[in-house]
Amino acid sequence: MADPTPNRFERDTAVERLGTGRYRGTVDPGWAVIEGAAPNGGYVLALAARAMRDALPHPDPVTVTAHFLAPPEPGPVDIEVELVRGGRRHSTVAAKLLQGGRERTRLLGTFADLGAADGPTRLDRPGLELPPRDDCVDATSRSLERAKDGAYPAPPILLRFDHRMPTEMMGWAEGRPLGRGEMGGYLRWADGAPMDTLGLLVVADCYPPPVFNMGDSRLGWVPTIELTVQIRKRPADGYLATRFTTEAITNGYLEEDGEVWDADGDLVALSRQLALVAR
Amino acid sequence: MADPTPNRFERDTAVERLGTGRYRGTVDPGWAVIEGAAPNGGYVLALAARAMRDALPHPDPVTVTAHFLAPPEPGPVDIEVELVRGGRRHSTVAAKLLQGGRERTRLLGTFADLGAADGPTRLDRPGLELPPRDDCVDATSRSLERAKDGAYPAPPILLRFDHRMPTEMMGWAEGRPLGRGEMGGYLRWADGAPMDTLGLLVVADCYPPPVFNMGDSRLGWVPTIELTVQIRKRPADGYLATRFTTEAITNGYLEEDGEVWDADGDLVALSRQLALVAR
Repeated sequence: MADPTPNRFERDTAVERLGTGRYRGTVDPGWAVIEGAAPNGGYVLALAARAMRDALPHPDPVTVTAHFLAPPEPGPVDIEVELVRGGRRHSTVAAKLLQGGRERTRLLGTFADLGAADGPTRLDRPGLELPPRDDCVDATSRSLERAKDGAYPAPPILLRFDHRMPTEMMGWAEGRPLGRGEMGGYLRWADGAPMDTLGLLVVADCYPPPVFNMGDSRLGWVPTIELTVQIRKRPADGYLATRFTTEAITNGYLEEDGEVWDADGDLVALSRQLALVAR
Repeated sequence: MADPTPNRFERDTAVERLGTGRYRGTVDPGWAVIEGAAPNGGYVLALAARAMRDALPHPDPVTVTAHFLAPPEPGPVDIEVELVRGGRRHSTVAAKLLQGGRERTRLLGTFADLGAADGPTRLDRPGLELPPRDDCVDATSRSLERAKDGAYPAPPILLRFDHRMPTEMMGWAEGRPLGRGEMGGYLRWADGAPMDTLGLLVVADCYPPPVFNMGDSRLGWVPTIELTVQIRKRPADGYLATRFTTEAITNGYLEEDGEVWDADGDLVALSRQLALVAR
């Protein structure tokens, strides 16, 4: 469906093909959690995935894994893509994301054409139990208002989305954490652009860490070691519904499990990351 | 702890270092699901991971991903290991598993020394609700008895483990499937060898697919596209408790989520694979 609005995600993950398997892109500063800091891992994953899929006949990542070696910085980035195996239904590709000759992220993914997938469907997994969207907080607007009132600046990545969050999910920012490791709500791109399977890679890592809602003073920032996103379906138009949880922290290591559903009530993505409590 | 028994897992995943990043191993036929067929994916993952860790100062895989490109065959195998990033706490490595010059599996993993991990611990995840082990079926012995009675032969990989399974999990093999996508139970190595973090990579993929317990005639074999195992802790001595589930099948694509707990009641591994219903 044609969309007349500018598509910031597409623009900020655009890549130029320099030669076989060689791409150039730009890390945009608008996808950081803190102004001027390293970009969000999901954005880095999507930027690399756009280069990966350019090398393939298959447009949709069905499973992509990124290992984060060193934080990238805003500015130009080189992406090297290696076709590992090209098949009729699936292509497997590896990729490196480099800046200044130093590798920042290593990736491995398998792509397919999800528009042509035709096997059986069966959903035994319960959908998300979120309150109606009209009862949720417009978290993006609230963050902008707070910033105007002189509180902390709105996180750049928050402004890329139109976030509608259940009130209880918002308490952590005001000293009333939920008491369990959960984040989530409804979202779509702030500019109204259509969501695609590359955009889901950003969605899978765009919330504050669920541990922030645990109310556990030992837990601060939790840098991602590895993030894997499995994508099932191209999302329908409309808001996505999401849930991210952390349930087990073992000597500093923790999982962050995510599920993303579309407006048709279909599961569109499952994600899991391994993160480590920063010392 | 010294163990006087033979350790078949260690023997069947042994690798010889031929040079920097170059290893030679042998795919043993004893880890297939069907006699003479391709080996189990978790075994292939563990074989490659043993080569990967030989190249590193860090002995434990904290997260390893394998993309299965083509089924390996019993016999010699070459493993090429690339150190992507060596750090103080973590090493990231990529690996290829080849036979006859053809790549069969591509891997990407991050290793650490889990014996030295010292961050916070918190467990909000409920443990497994399995019946007591004494109320479970000795699935390994039962399969051997059946084979003696002239039924189908016991799957080689089943014989590598001492499986104790809840009765309800066994019904699928006798036409009484559970009605939901679940497998699991208790297990340890059949030869009594100690379980380590490499062995957990096999455990993460050693059960029949949970879809077999759905009782859905559309679902046959489900080849793995990608398998990721996150490991938290070196397992304590004793039986492991496991649970594997499939809850969402979308146009043939499905997840298989696993959790593995040790005899101390600690979560030792989380796994997820993406599989595809075979046509």
